[in-house]
Amino acid sequence: MTTPSDTPQATDVSLDSPEGGRTSGRLMRRLQALATFGATPNEQGGGVTRPAYGAAHAEAAARVADWMREAGLEVGRDDVGNLIGVLPGRNRSLAAIGVGSHLDSVPNGGAFDGALGVLAAIEAAQSIAESEEPLERDLVVLGFADEEGNNFGIGVLSAQLWIDEIEPEAFQDVRDPVGRSLRDYLEAFDVPGVPIVTRPDLGSYLEIHVEQGPILAAEGASAAAVEAIVGISRLTVHFSGQANHAGTTPMSMRQDALTAASELVLAVRSLTESSDGRAVGTVGVLEVEPGATNVIPGLVKLRVELRCPDPERLLELRSQVEHAAEDAAARFDVTTSWDAWHTAPPVAMDPRLLEATQDALADVGLPVRTMPSWAGHDAKVLARRMPVGMLFLPSVEGVSHAPNEWTDEEHIALAGPLLEHAIRRVDQTRDEAS
Amino acid sequence: MTTPSDTPQATDVSLDSPEGGRTSGRLMRRLQALATFGATPNEQGGGVTRPAYGAAHAEAAARVADWMREAGLEVGRDDVGNLIGVLPGRNRSLAAIGVGSHLDSVPNGGAFDGALGVLAAIEAAQSIAESEEPLERDLVVLGFADEEGNNFGIGVLSAQLWIDEIEPEAFQDVRDPVGRSLRDYLEAFDVPGVPIVTRPDLGSYLEIHVEQGPILAAEGASAAAVEAIVGISRLTVHFSGQANHAGTTPMSMRQDALTAASELVLAVRSLTESSDGRAVGTVGVLEVEPGATNVIPGLVKLRVELRCPDPERLLELRSQVEHAAEDAAARFDVTTSWDAWHTAPPVAMDPRLLEATQDALADVGLPVRTMPSWAGHDAKVLARRMPVGMLFLPSVEGVSHAPNEWTDEEHIALAGPLLEHAIRRVDQTRDEAS
Repeated sequence: MTTPSDTPQATDVSLDSPEGGRTSGRLMRRLQALATFGATPNEQGGGVTRPAYGAAHAEAAARVADWMREAGLEVGRDDVGNLIGVLPGRNRSLAAIGVGSHLDSVPNGGAFDGALGVLAAIEAAQSIAESEEPLERDLVVLGFADEEGNNFGIGVLSAQLWIDEIEPEAFQDVRDPVGRSLRDYLEAFDVPGVPIVTRPDLGSYLEIHVEQGPILAAEGASAAAVEAIVGISRLTVHFSGQANHAGTTPMSMRQDALTAASELVLAVRSLTESSDGRAVGTVGVLEVEPGATNVIPGLVKLRVELRCPDPERLLELRSQVEHAAEDAAARFDVTTSWDAWHTAPPVAMDPRLLEATQDALADVGLPVRTMPSWAGHDAKVLARRMPVGMLFLPSVEGVSHAPNEWTDEEHIALAGPLLEHAIRRVDQTRDEAS
Repeated sequence: MTTPSDTPQATDVSLDSPEGGRTSGRLMRRLQALATFGATPNEQGGGVTRPAYGAAHAEAAARVADWMREAGLEVGRDDVGNLIGVLPGRNRSLAAIGVGSHLDSVPNGGAFDGALGVLAAIEAAQSIAESEEPLERDLVVLGFADEEGNNFGIGVLSAQLWIDEIEPEAFQDVRDPVGRSLRDYLEAFDVPGVPIVTRPDLGSYLEIHVEQGPILAAEGASAAAVEAIVGISRLTVHFSGQANHAGTTPMSMRQDALTAASELVLAVRSLTESSDGRAVGTVGVLEVEPGATNVIPGLVKLRVELRCPDPERLLELRSQVEHAAEDAAARFDVTTSWDAWHTAPPVAMDPRLLEATQDALADVGLPVRTMPSWAGHDAKVLARRMPVGMLFLPSVEGVSHAPNEWTDEEHIALAGPLLEHAIRRVDQTRDEAS
């Protein structure tokens, strides 16, 4: 794609550009510099391993704090390790605009997941700070500490801490696999030169992220506004038949739990395949008992995961899967039961922030492409307390959570301008709450 | 069913019959007495755990030796623990008739599997010994030591040892899971009062066994002649796709190894279901990688087992399964490979011995029912060196290898007479080999 003419940053997209300053080349260089904190040796894959509250996270946060100061932000962190950079607005009584993402990575992950959202927010903040048009509202750049859940198995943990969903009294009970508590981690966590400050109140939150899927890349699209973060429904399904001799039991007298389970796997596939791209469904776990070559499976336990951006449709899909389990059980003379142990409803973006992100696409000269986010993000948690909006950049071949996660520089060049336009549009909206 | 009038043994079928002697009640009592050697405590299931060469096996063999002597047999054992009871015939230059089964059991198995064939052979031998019509040939009653393969993972081991398929030099290399060798087991094995003797040469072998399947019981049949022991083909099939994010990967871009595997499971089912009872097929093992709720399966490994009494049909079925794997892989954009790591061709019963067992059914007044054996037996190994024939009694509900394995007393009552008739018919056949 060609870079829109109204976004001067995007005219310099060369990674080799020698000058620093207000350029997209700078953002790509910073993404690569940040990836050195927690870099996995090449012989182990060459990715990034930066779990929250570890040494690499603290060093990365200190470097990001330097970049925040360079952008003109007042830097601090909250008492749970979230990095905060504030660009004061003209009317500090108005609710602030939050913008950011997370600084941690999965084991041997990539350089873009999370990092892009934090560093692009700094680009946008610096562009605003250096412009002739200051914001009305405070801009709060956020680098969340623990989104990936590597330590405690709790995803989007630090966004939940930001909105006070987990009481400090419980920090002692949140433990990693070897028993070290969140309290222990927090007491040991220090970001040199960054003081602990009080969390600012946010009136809204914007986040730009890599898609982590192949849809935009396959379409040749450069960016999209996110309409909703999909809801997730997870079921464990049991099929109980009769373990029996694989030779002496005639086909007509079998109660084979695995044949019923196989039919459900294919039903999940066909139910979601026929959704016109509005749902996905996966059986990622399937266990067979007793699991011997010459014994008919007596018990199969499997997990179905369904994702859909439409709340009613997600419920309907779950119901269809349950009926498919009953049909499969009846066909193969086994019994079935299920436990819908996890349901997270879809989270729609706030209409005004969705409009702001769509307008930002138009502002930089892109088609207004809107899509669901099929993965969860910090914005999903913050949406429980404030309006949120999100933007996506393409992931090459859809790869994420892997060392070869990549987004092309021509798309990285759009991140700062897109966020700046979206921030300015949110800044201009009337704030009923304040 | 009513007991045929020409089988006086069968007129006394009461378990409570006080007198011993030549009765079917005695056989049932002996089956139950033998089940006390290695009896599993009731709280652990109440079955029989009698692995080969263990203390319970030695004690059981000593008791069976007593019953052999009571029947008029000369008792010994070979150097690999197989119990031998010889009833001399009138013409000792003729090849002997072997008849028996095995004395070991699976862990927490039942009272009939194996034991029936040995104890019914003693009944037949005693009936012949006490009759006015001695055999021309020697009758050799056999109690094989290790059919179930519990110690070394090698099924029908002692039948292979009987026909010298495993050299004594290799005994040191046959080891149990903790490293104890077959040589160590044999050196420690002692059956009090039973001397080691030279293995007699056999010209043929007969075996009666419980069906271990539900077919005869479902038909209300009392016994059957076995036409063949089914062949077995075992394949390990791999499906390789692409592990990927279960949310962000659209259905149309997935390479899901489990959907392909599920299609193969159902293909194995339908290919064998349409065989008119001439084949069975099972997927008993299926493993999914990486095996996480939110990750599309990238690799599935499964095992297919096929059984069929017809050699060409078994090969054709395996080829159909291989094609089904290719079709499933193509449909779901994954790759497949397989390894047909085990093939045992079907073993047909010798036509003369099949006729002898069929005639024995008619001799006791039963319809001549013929069926395949869907499980392996000692006879399958001995068939590599001599003509073999087999008879089946019904298993209640087809249960075997379990504490509630059962055969009704009215059917147990048939075992001695059926074997005696079959033995007498084999005895009267001309023996080309001698």
